[in-house]
Amino acid sequence: MLDQKRVVIEKVTPQLDGGVHFVKRVVDEHVNVTADVFSDGHDLVACSVLFKHEKARKWEEVRMHPTHNDSWEASFQVSEQGFYEYKVEGWVDYALNWQHGTDRKIADGQHVTSELLEGAEYLKALKKKATDTEKRYLNVVIGYFTNEKDYEKAIKEATSDKLHDLFVKYPERFLANESQPLQVYVDRLKARFSTWYEFFPRSASKEEGKHGTFKDCEALLPRVAKMGFDTLYFPPIHPIGEVNRKGKNNSTEAQDGDVGSPWGIGSKEGGHTSIHRELGSEKDFKSLVNKAKELGIEVAMDFALQAAPDHPWVKEHPEWFKWRPDGTVQYAENPPKKYQDILPIYFESKDWKNLWKEMLNAALYWVEEFGIRVFRVDNPHTKPYFFWGWLMAEVKKKYPDVLFLSEAFTRPKVMQQLAKQGYTQSYTYFTWRNTKAELIEYVEELTKTDQREYFRPNFWPNTPDINPWALQGGNEAVHLQKYFLAATLSSNTGLYGPVFEYMVSEAVPGKEEYWDSEKYQLRHWDWNKENKLTTLITRINEARKAHESLQQTNNIKFLSIENENLIAYYKYNDDRTDETLLIVNLDPYYAQQGWVQVPLQDLGISEGHQMQVHDVITGSSYVWDKEWCFVELHPTLPFHLFKISK
Amino acid sequence: MLDQKRVVIEKVTPQLDGGVHFVKRVVDEHVNVTADVFSDGHDLVACSVLFKHEKARKWEEVRMHPTHNDSWEASFQVSEQGFYEYKVEGWVDYALNWQHGTDRKIADGQHVTSELLEGAEYLKALKKKATDTEKRYLNVVIGYFTNEKDYEKAIKEATSDKLHDLFVKYPERFLANESQPLQVYVDRLKARFSTWYEFFPRSASKEEGKHGTFKDCEALLPRVAKMGFDTLYFPPIHPIGEVNRKGKNNSTEAQDGDVGSPWGIGSKEGGHTSIHRELGSEKDFKSLVNKAKELGIEVAMDFALQAAPDHPWVKEHPEWFKWRPDGTVQYAENPPKKYQDILPIYFESKDWKNLWKEMLNAALYWVEEFGIRVFRVDNPHTKPYFFWGWLMAEVKKKYPDVLFLSEAFTRPKVMQQLAKQGYTQSYTYFTWRNTKAELIEYVEELTKTDQREYFRPNFWPNTPDINPWALQGGNEAVHLQKYFLAATLSSNTGLYGPVFEYMVSEAVPGKEEYWDSEKYQLRHWDWNKENKLTTLITRINEARKAHESLQQTNNIKFLSIENENLIAYYKYNDDRTDETLLIVNLDPYYAQQGWVQVPLQDLGISEGHQMQVHDVITGSSYVWDKEWCFVELHPTLPFHLFKISK
Repeated sequence: MLDQKRVVIEKVTPQLDGGVHFVKRVVDEHVNVTADVFSDGHDLVACSVLFKHEKARKWEEVRMHPTHNDSWEASFQVSEQGFYEYKVEGWVDYALNWQHGTDRKIADGQHVTSELLEGAEYLKALKKKATDTEKRYLNVVIGYFTNEKDYEKAIKEATSDKLHDLFVKYPERFLANESQPLQVYVDRLKARFSTWYEFFPRSASKEEGKHGTFKDCEALLPRVAKMGFDTLYFPPIHPIGEVNRKGKNNSTEAQDGDVGSPWGIGSKEGGHTSIHRELGSEKDFKSLVNKAKELGIEVAMDFALQAAPDHPWVKEHPEWFKWRPDGTVQYAENPPKKYQDILPIYFESKDWKNLWKEMLNAALYWVEEFGIRVFRVDNPHTKPYFFWGWLMAEVKKKYPDVLFLSEAFTRPKVMQQLAKQGYTQSYTYFTWRNTKAELIEYVEELTKTDQREYFRPNFWPNTPDINPWALQGGNEAVHLQKYFLAATLSSNTGLYGPVFEYMVSEAVPGKEEYWDSEKYQLRHWDWNKENKLTTLITRINEARKAHESLQQTNNIKFLSIENENLIAYYKYNDDRTDETLLIVNLDPYYAQQGWVQVPLQDLGISEGHQMQVHDVITGSSYVWDKEWCFVELHPTLPFHLFKISK
Repeated sequence: MLDQKRVVIEKVTPQLDGGVHFVKRVVDEHVNVTADVFSDGHDLVACSVLFKHEKARKWEEVRMHPTHNDSWEASFQVSEQGFYEYKVEGWVDYALNWQHGTDRKIADGQHVTSELLEGAEYLKALKKKATDTEKRYLNVVIGYFTNEKDYEKAIKEATSDKLHDLFVKYPERFLANESQPLQVYVDRLKARFSTWYEFFPRSASKEEGKHGTFKDCEALLPRVAKMGFDTLYFPPIHPIGEVNRKGKNNSTEAQDGDVGSPWGIGSKEGGHTSIHRELGSEKDFKSLVNKAKELGIEVAMDFALQAAPDHPWVKEHPEWFKWRPDGTVQYAENPPKKYQDILPIYFESKDWKNLWKEMLNAALYWVEEFGIRVFRVDNPHTKPYFFWGWLMAEVKKKYPDVLFLSEAFTRPKVMQQLAKQGYTQSYTYFTWRNTKAELIEYVEELTKTDQREYFRPNFWPNTPDINPWALQGGNEAVHLQKYFLAATLSSNTGLYGPVFEYMVSEAVPGKEEYWDSEKYQLRHWDWNKENKLTTLITRINEARKAHESLQQTNNIKFLSIENENLIAYYKYNDDRTDETLLIVNLDPYYAQQGWVQVPLQDLGISEGHQMQVHDVITGSSYVWDKEWCFVELHPTLPFHLFKISK
């Protein structure tokens, strides 16, 4: 192919899979773009990042600057939700090359009359774009360049910064080349900074043995707000299937009065757009959502695409389920296991297009009728990736502020792919990372590889599905460590509440499952009880709100500390106006001591210079003036959260 | 976008810049393809690499096998010159999933009548593709599957390898997905394995002071062949410009009788498709090329796209050069330097399309009229990249066996880009890599990063343009080391001959340039003189021909050896039927001793097992039976080239 262009543009970053997938930011963040840009020969190249919001007509431009080895860099800020496009444009800047070459010839003592005549041609081209004032200046300079008698004035102007700036301001992009456009999706801040709380609304009653209601939940909102949570997530609130309903502790035969699993969605009372009657009415739910909003809490709904055998879809759309040659319906299974309370959606259905649209409508119903803006999606990895890509794009087209949390605990590439398809946040392996080495390796994978561009972790110490070994029978110190790590390593964090706060960790023997799990039965909690855990969780959440450095996940640096039971890290906000230094004792039984290496270079201070570290949890302050500082942490309060003041 | 597919295919390798550029192989090599391939849910996926030569109609297929973490792998062999395409196809294999699930249910003691009925459907689909024999078998099995009385036979067949193999043989690619096609260019073997020799034909005369001719060169062919070189490269053989001709030692004023630089191409006698008359006629050149061929030597021509001021193009196509406003022509320059014997080609010319075509014609002239198949391209980095991409593609379309060596000694990304545009081989920084650390770092960059896929290094210890510091005044040991390293680290190597063999390293003071360089004057050599260097160069080249491991660049592993002056490496051919172990003393003055770690695991032998190492240079043999073995090398013969026999 004949192509006269001279500039090569390669390795534009951030870029995922050759531009197939988009990267992510939140409003007001920057996208730092790098690229290899170079031409043949000795000529100077110039390049820009061009960017625009999907709804804007014109591209905005920011000039790139060289870093090293033919790499260039520039960053732009995203100010609106939705998609932005960005690309790199590069060109040989003939005018700047002329000035650069002429400058060197003059310095070498050469006579440059011929070069000045060339320069006059560049100035004439400039004039077409210049302001009136600039035009007057250019006319004067052209006069100098073309009259030998003005030679001294000419060479002064030829090498002037003023002319240089005009060349930069109005580049002649002859034979310019550009990279393919890439995309970044911009979410609201909550995509990056959120604090989730989960409880079962049916366990919200004050009265033991009574089915909780949305009204009971309303009464608990002040408690949730006081503890500093901003997102209240409920397991599914839809009618629970009655056919093949599960009993207590996941038994396949339910007894009379067993309430079933909220994830067994759908009965004669309705399906994914209905509410389980024992919880209350649509009006009650709307009231709850609005009251929560007044307290700064968003209600997050569960979006679980599966059906109980008595879900209305089964009769209305039998083609959305798989039927076997013997006329029976296909239950969910992972051979040899079968799950007879659940029918999977048959995505290979011939009626798949209507099926997809109905799923979208089910999500939009809660968005449009109840103002829901946050979904926790159940087992997204058992539905097609491109289905999610489509569904989330459709929702965000109309409601760019809707957030989706991916509940996939599975293989790395599967979890990553869901994030690439558009999930705002993702559950993680944090729940099983216990040692210092495990924690550092995992957080560095999330924050120092290209996952930082699209996979936003949400760290949970536990969920109703996971009662991790480390918490089973774990003491108060373990619980304190786990929540502190979750809430300070990651800017998105969540807690499956009462069992954690009250250290209820009884498990099905040999499994990471809760005994008497709320998934299958009502539980009763004394919601008024405060203890050290509720107090410290509250303080930690307060610190997260007060410190922008804790609202960032990627801005982290692990620090050397010479003790395998102590982990230390430095966090900062983008402009480094907020900096914190965190140290955790990972040993639940013994006090640990060590010397931590303060990141003086990052902090911009030299050794010997004093700085104050203020523990925002305890209120204690220390003055440090060394690079290596001594710390000791006891399991009774196994962490420091130091705000650094210089 | 609605897309029902379920399989994700990502990170297909080898892949350069998202498929913009092609990778390279030589005939009979393999392309090992890897990809991440996975689906949602628990279903098994299957995938294949599809590949075809550009001229083939049908895709060939090779099934991939899983390696780890959702990565898959398969390799295919390329047997013809030219482009191949390859891509990955993946699908959920419903039939295999059915067999896998049914197998587990049977093992679990479940009754699988319903599953067998499902299975019958898969078998009916199979029948459409099966051979008659297979059809008969399938009919029997369908009978079993659909009759409860044959249940025992049915479950035996359901889980049989025979059925499994049929499912694998005839996959139902329902909702299959595929990656975008990628390209590999396949060269002849010489692209990977070549041994170049360079001399100036005008210095070929036996008689001192007399201009050498092609006939003189013919007389030297047996010497070149005997020394084991397979490619004889000449600086440009075109008429040399007379206007502004350069004098001895690059002086700007030529004296009467000065022969000028062969790179100052073109005079009233002709340009890029003419021959410098003092060298001989077209017929003489043709004779030389053919005689060389008989001796197993290809003549490589210089392709230097620039013109002396009196090149015929300047008059015939003034628009192919840049004219300044004062009416003078633009000389080559790198301000403040000017090169008044050279006019650069003006690629920004309005007549660029004709210009490009004429350049192509100039190359094709030598290919078609003289059978030239190897070009060394002068300063390709000062001409547009896409020009080269186009020109080389056009040449190879008709003559896929033409090879291009890129003579660019410049910034890394520039050199890499030329290789990406299609250069077969590239000059390298080897010339300036002296220490063990420098050599290892550089060779690992070339062979362990993606450069291995497209950048084929050609290691030269010197060129007429580069008289490197390390060789200036260097003793015999340095020369031996440098050629040995060049010729054994890289499978492509070259030598600017007589000055190296006779250790003529006088330099322009403070520069890496030869004094009395042949670039500007005739030199006279006693071509009959044999010495230790000519002898050992010959032996090294013999070893390269005898040992396939030395015909590979990428198949290298550096070995631990506890002495900074000793470098050791293990080389192998693709099927490891030839394995060599090489050790070099980098110190030109002192003997060095050290313990080298033999790569027992790569060799597939255990410690204590004896192996014989046979030095193919000296003929000595040793028996080694330890992992760490002692070596001592003296500067008089500073290397071992061990053939390993187990």
